Amino acid sequence: MVTRLALLGAGRIGKVHAKAIAEDKRAKLVAVADAFPEAANAIASAAGCAVRTIDEIEADKDIDAVVICTPTNTHADLIERFAKAGKAIFCEKPIDLDVARARACLETVRQTGAKVMLGFNRRFDPHFQAVRREIDAGTIGKVEMVTITSRDPGAPPAEYIKVSGGIFRDMTIHDFDMARFLLGEEIETVVATGSVLVDPKIGELGDYDSASLILTTKSGRQAVISNSRRASYGYDQRIEVHGSLGAVSAENQRPVSIEVATKDGYTRPPLHDFFMTRYTAAYAAEISAFIDSLEKGTAPSPSAEDGLIALALADAALKSAKENKVVRVEL
Amino acid sequence: MVTRLALLGAGRIGKVHAKAIAEDKRAKLVAVADAFPEAANAIASAAGCAVRTIDEIEADKDIDAVVICTPTNTHADLIERFAKAGKAIFCEKPIDLDVARARACLETVRQTGAKVMLGFNRRFDPHFQAVRREIDAGTIGKVEMVTITSRDPGAPPAEYIKVSGGIFRDMTIHDFDMARFLLGEEIETVVATGSVLVDPKIGELGDYDSASLILTTKSGRQAVISNSRRASYGYDQRIEVHGSLGAVSAENQRPVSIEVATKDGYTRPPLHDFFMTRYTAAYAAEISAFIDSLEKGTAPSPSAEDGLIALALADAALKSAKENKVVRVEL
Amino acid sequence: MVTRLALLGAGRIGKVHAKAIAEDKRAKLVAVADAFPEAANAIASAAGCAVRTIDEIEADKDIDAVVICTPTNTHADLIERFAKAGKAIFCEKPIDLDVARARACLETVRQTGAKVMLGFNRRFDPHFQAVRREIDAGTIGKVEMVTITSRDPGAPPAEYIKVSGGIFRDMTIHDFDMARFLLGEEIETVVATGSVLVDPKIGELGDYDSASLILTTKSGRQAVISNSRRASYGYDQRIEVHGSLGAVSAENQRPVSIEVATKDGYTRPPLHDFFMTRYTAAYAAEISAFIDSLEKGTAPSPSAEDGLIALALADAALKSAKENKVVRVEL
Amino acid sequence: MVTRLALLGAGRIGKVHAKAIAEDKRAKLVAVADAFPEAANAIASAAGCAVRTIDEIEADKDIDAVVICTPTNTHADLIERFAKAGKAIFCEKPIDLDVARARACLETVRQTGAKVMLGFNRRFDPHFQAVRREIDAGTIGKVEMVTITSRDPGAPPAEYIKVSGGIFRDMTIHDFDMARFLLGEEIETVVATGSVLVDPKIGELGDYDSASLILTTKSGRQAVISNSRRASYGYDQRIEVHGSLGAVSAENQRPVSIEVATKDGYTRPPLHDFFMTRYTAAYAAEISAFIDSLEKGTAPSPSAEDGLIALALADAALKSAKENKVVRVEL
Repeated sequence: MVTRLALLGAGRIGKVHAKAIAEDKRAKLVAVADAFPEAANAIASAAGCAVRTIDEIEADKDIDAVVICTPTNTHADLIERFAKAGKAIFCEKPIDLDVARARACLETVRQTGAKVMLGFNRRFDPHFQAVRREIDAGTIGKVEMVTITSRDPGAPPAEYIKVSGGIFRDMTIHDFDMARFLLGEEIETVVATGSVLVDPKIGELGDYDSASLILTTKSGRQAVISNSRRASYGYDQRIEVHGSLGAVSAENQRPVSIEVATKDGYTRPPLHDFFMTRYTAAYAAEISAFIDSLEKGTAPSPSAEDGLIALALADAALKSAKENKVVRVEL
Repeated sequence: MVTRLALLGAGRIGKVHAKAIAEDKRAKLVAVADAFPEAANAIASAAGCAVRTIDEIEADKDIDAVVICTPTNTHADLIERFAKAGKAIFCEKPIDLDVARARACLETVRQTGAKVMLGFNRRFDPHFQAVRREIDAGTIGKVEMVTITSRDPGAPPAEYIKVSGGIFRDMTIHDFDMARFLLGEEIETVVATGSVLVDPKIGELGDYDSASLILTTKSGRQAVISNSRRASYGYDQRIEVHGSLGAVSAENQRPVSIEVATKDGYTRPPLHDFFMTRYTAAYAAEISAFIDSLEKGTAPSPSAEDGLIALALADAALKSAKENKVVRVEL
Repeated sequence: MVTRLALLGAGRIGKVHAKAIAEDKRAKLVAVADAFPEAANAIASAAGCAVRTIDEIEADKDIDAVVICTPTNTHADLIERFAKAGKAIFCEKPIDLDVARARACLETVRQTGAKVMLGFNRRFDPHFQAVRREIDAGTIGKVEMVTITSRDPGAPPAEYIKVSGGIFRDMTIHDFDMARFLLGEEIETVVATGSVLVDPKIGELGDYDSASLILTTKSGRQAVISNSRRASYGYDQRIEVHGSLGAVSAENQRPVSIEVATKDGYTRPPLHDFFMTRYTAAYAAEISAFIDSLEKGTAPSPSAEDGLIALALADAALKSAKENKVVRVEL
Repeated sequence: MVTRLALLGAGRIGKVHAKAIAEDKRAKLVAVADAFPEAANAIASAAGCAVRTIDEIEADKDIDAVVICTPTNTHADLIERFAKAGKAIFCEKPIDLDVARARACLETVRQTGAKVMLGFNRRFDPHFQAVRREIDAGTIGKVEMVTITSRDPGAPPAEYIKVSGGIFRDMTIHDFDMARFLLGEEIETVVATGSVLVDPKIGELGDYDSASLILTTKSGRQAVISNSRRASYGYDQRIEVHGSLGAVSAENQRPVSIEVATKDGYTRPPLHDFFMTRYTAAYAAEISAFIDSLEKGTAPSPSAEDGLIALALADAALKSAKENKVVRVEL
C-alpha cells in the first residue's frame, strides 16, 4: 500500500519535501496547493501530480496525509481542519507563535485522534542521530550536560524578523527541541540572555540577535545553548553531550572536506552557508520517518506535543531575557 | 532537448547510473538491456522505461547515447558496435584488460568520430574536484609530488581475482587516472612493488594484494601510490598534492562524523566500507558530466584515450613488479 | 641584574615554580621556606639555595621578590606582610576565599605600592595566548561571545572540597579570569546553575559538582562557562571566541597525538589527566612574565585586582546558584 | 652513581645535548671541547663545567662517556679513538658519509667492545614512540606498509649541499632508520627516484631536492618515503603504519594548536619550521636513553650498526636513483 500525500505550500521547503516524497517508493504525491499557481504548477509538473485547492484536498477521500508548508500563521488552522478531515498531518514547526493558540490546536488534535508530526528536521540529521544512538547505547553513561551551538550565517531581513516571533521562537526553538532530544528528561527552568550585537535594527524591532541560555531538568541535568544571527564562517551547528562515562559530539559539516596548506597555515573551507544544504539528508529522513509511522501505524515523532513544549520553552526564554530572571517552565 | 539514453547492463553499477539519469532533467532513460530479464525489468519498472535487446537499441534512431555497464570482456566490442551505430557512449572502465585490444577499439572510435567517455568516477568526487580546483587556481604553485592512498575494506573472492586482470588493472587503474588528473603532465616511468600479505590465495593466482608504486613525469614530478586489498578501518581513499607554494589534500570520508570520548580516548567511526556509498556523489556527477558534454557538444572527459593510457600504465606496473625494474611507459 | 627570589611553600606547585626560576637566567632562587623541613630541603638541594624561615626571608634585604605557594588561608596575610617589607610578590590564586578579606588585603597593597601578580596560570598557556593575539590583531572583529569548557578529570576528595570555598571559588575562578582575559569588557551580570551529578558527598557538603554559567558585559557581550568535576576522557580545557568577523578557538591538548584506526574506528588518546602536565608551559611562562615585569619595572599582570574581581564573580555565581536568580556583580 | 659526560663540539646540537644532560639528575657534564673557544666557553659557563681539549678528555679517567657533536668528517675518527680509550660514546649521525669508512669504524668498535649509540633522534619523539608502542602491543596486527613523509621547510645553502653527502645520506637517512624502526624486518631492496624541482643549483651540484622511495623486506613488507627540500607550510614529519588489523599514524606538530574561522575558512597555524623545535622532546629523551643504558649496563640503541645500515640504505638509494633501477641492499 502506497501512502498518498498532498502538499500544502509550494515554497522553498515545500519543494524539498516534494522531492523527498518522490524518492520514497512507499509514498506518492497526488496533489499540491498554493496561493501562487506558478509555484504549485512547478512542483506539480516535476512530481507528476495535480494542482488542487485546499478545499479539494480536504474533501478528497483518496488522500491519506498532508504535508503543511504554508506560512506559520496558517499552521494551527490547517492542523485543526485536516485533523477533523481524518488526514494524517506533517506540519512544519511551529504550530503557532502563540502558545495558547498552539495549546488549543493540540486539544483539537487530541479529540480527533489525528496523527500529527512536527517538522523538527534536525532530529533526523544522520550525525545527530548517531549522537543519540551513542547515548541510547550507554556509551557515555548518564547524560549530565548538553551543549548546543547554533549560529546562522547571516541575519534575516527586518521584514522577516518582524513576523518571526523573535529569536527564541524562530531560531532557538530548534535548539530547545534538540536539548530535549538529548537530555532524556523534561526541562524545568530556563534562563536566557539576549543581546543586540549584530544589527541595531534587530534591536529596534524589540528582538535580540545573540543569545545564551541555560536549561535545567529535575535531576539537575544542564543544557547550554549559544545562538547568533551571524557567523562569518558558515552555518555553525554543533552538539555535544557530556555524561558520567564520557562524551559524544557532532562536528560541523562543510560542502567539501579538503585542506590547503601554505605558508599561512592549514585551511579547510567554510561550513555550509545555508540550512537546506546543511540538512539535506535530515529533510529526506524526516519525511521518510513520517511515511514510516503511517505505514506501521505507530505514533509519529516528534509529535504536536513536542512542538507545544518547544514553544513554551521559547516563551519562558523570552520572559527570562526580558525580566532578567530564571523562569520555571509552565507546560 | 532531452538526451535519450539506453542502459546496457542492469547490475549494481547499472542501477546507480539509472538513478543518476532519472534525477537529471536534461536526460531520459528510454531502454535497458540485460542478459537477465529480472535485472532489466527491475530497472525498467523503477525508471519507467522499456526493456530491449542490444540489437534493438543499436537500431533505434531515437536513442542518442548508451551507458555500458556490462562485463569487462564485452566493453571493447560494444564500444565499437555503438560507435559505428552513431551513438554517444559512456563506458565503465576498463575498455579491455588487453591493451592491444583497447588500442584497436580506440582506432575504431577515432574512425567513427564517436564520442566516448570512460567511467573513472573518482574524478567527479566533490572533494577530489575541489583539490583539482585549488591546483588550477595556483594556490599550491607548481605541482611537484602527488600521494595517493587507496585501500579496499576487504579482498574480493578468488573468482573475481581470476578475471580481474590483477591488482594493477583492476584497482590501481583508478589511481593511475587520478595521478594523471592531478600531475598535469604525462607519466614516463613506473616502478611497482607487489607483495602478498593479505591472502595467500591471491598469490597462488599470480596476483598481488599489496602494492607500492612510484610514477615520474618528464620534468621530474613524482606520484606515489599505496594499495592494499584490505583495510580494517574502511575504504581508505586519500589524495595529497605537494607543490612549490603549498599542498592540498582530501581526507577520508565516513558515513557520520561524530566523536565519542571515553577513558579509552576519542573515537570517530570507521570510514565508508563500500565504494558505492563512498562515491555516491561522484557517480551522479559523472553521468551529469556526460549528459552535459552531449548537450553542449563538447568532448567528453575522461576520454577513451584516458582509458587506454591508464591501461598502459597498469601493464607497465605489472612488468615492473614481475621483473623488478623501472619501466618506461609505451603509449 | 639578576632578580633574587624566595619561595614560600615547597609543595607541588612550589616545585613547579622553583624549576621555572632555575631555567630563567634573569632570576635566582636564593631561599625557600616551608613548615615541613623535608619539603624545603628537597627544593633547596635541587635548586642550590638556602632553607630559611619566613621571618628571615622578610628581613633579608637581598631578596627582591617572593613567590607565595602556601595554603590559601595564609595568602592575604603573607601578601600584606611582604608588601610592607617592600618585596615584589607573586601569589598563587586566590588572595583569600573571603572577598572582604581580599579587598582589605588589596587596600594594604595599594598603600604600600607593592607589585603583586596573581597566579592565573592559564593566561600564559601558549594556545590561549595565541587566541588572545588573534583577538588583539582584529582577525575575528569585535568580540561577541566567549565559550569556556573546563572539566576536571576527577573530583577531589571530600577533605579538599570542605576547604575549597566551593566549585565557583575553587574551579570556576580560573574561568572567570579567562572570560575577562578574552571578553575585553568588565562583567556586569552572572547567572549560575549548580547541580550535584557526579558525587552525592559533594552535595552533602553544600557544594556543586556540575555548573553552567552565563556572564554578560555592559555592551551585551556574553560568556558561557561549563564546569564539571569529572571527565572520563581527561582534563577538558577549551576556549572559543566568536566575533563579528569570525571565531578563534583553542583545542584540547593530549600527551601524544597519534591516531589508531581499527574496525572499531579512529581513536586518539585521552587528554592530559592532570593540570600540571596540561599547563607545564603556562607555569614556566607565568614566572617568566613576573620576572619580566620586575626587570622592566612594568605593572605585573594579572594583578591583585584581577584576583579580587575573579573572587567577586565567584561570590556572585554562588549567590546566583543558591537563590536561583541573575546577580549583578558588585565590585 | 652519576654518569660523567664530556661534550665534543659546542655548536647548535651540542647546546641541545648540554641542556638535556643538565636536566637529567643521573648525569653530569664535566667538560666541553670545541675548536672555537667562545662556543665551548658559552656551554661551560651555562653548565658549570670545564673547557678541555679532546686530548685531555680522552685521558681523563673520571669521564665515563662522550657525546660527539663535531662535524661529520670527524665522527669515525673520534668514535675509534674514544672506543679505544674505554669511553661510552653517543655520536650524532652519520658515522661517516663513506660506508667503507663506517664499516671499518664499526670493526674497531666491535674489537674494543665499546658502547656506541647513534643519534637517530626521531626514534625518541614521543609521538613516534607511541606509534611503535601500538605496533608492539599488536593493536594493528602484523605490519604491512609503512608511509613516511619527511619534508624540510626550506633547502639548505649550496655550501651545505656540497658536503652533505646528498639528499639520501643527509635527509633520507633519518627516514631509513625510521622505516627500520617501524617495519620490524630488515630491508632487502630499495628503489629511489630523485628530481630537481626546488632549486636548479642543487641539481648543478649533482644532488636531488625531491625524492620518492620504496623499500621492501624479505616477507614483502613495504615502506614508502616521500622527501622534499621545501615545504612552505613547515617541517612536515608524518609516519603511518598499516597492518593486518588496522593502522596507526602520527600527525604533524605545530607550535600552537588554535584554529581561526573566518569567511575564508578554518585555519590552523603552519607547522614547526625548524627541526630543533619540532624534536625538542626527542633530543632530551634521546640523551636520557643513553644515560639509562649506561646506568643499567644495557646495549645502547640505536646502535652503531643501525648507523651503518642506514648509510648502506642511502648508498643503495643513490645507486637506484642514478642508474634508474631497483637495488638489492648489501650489508
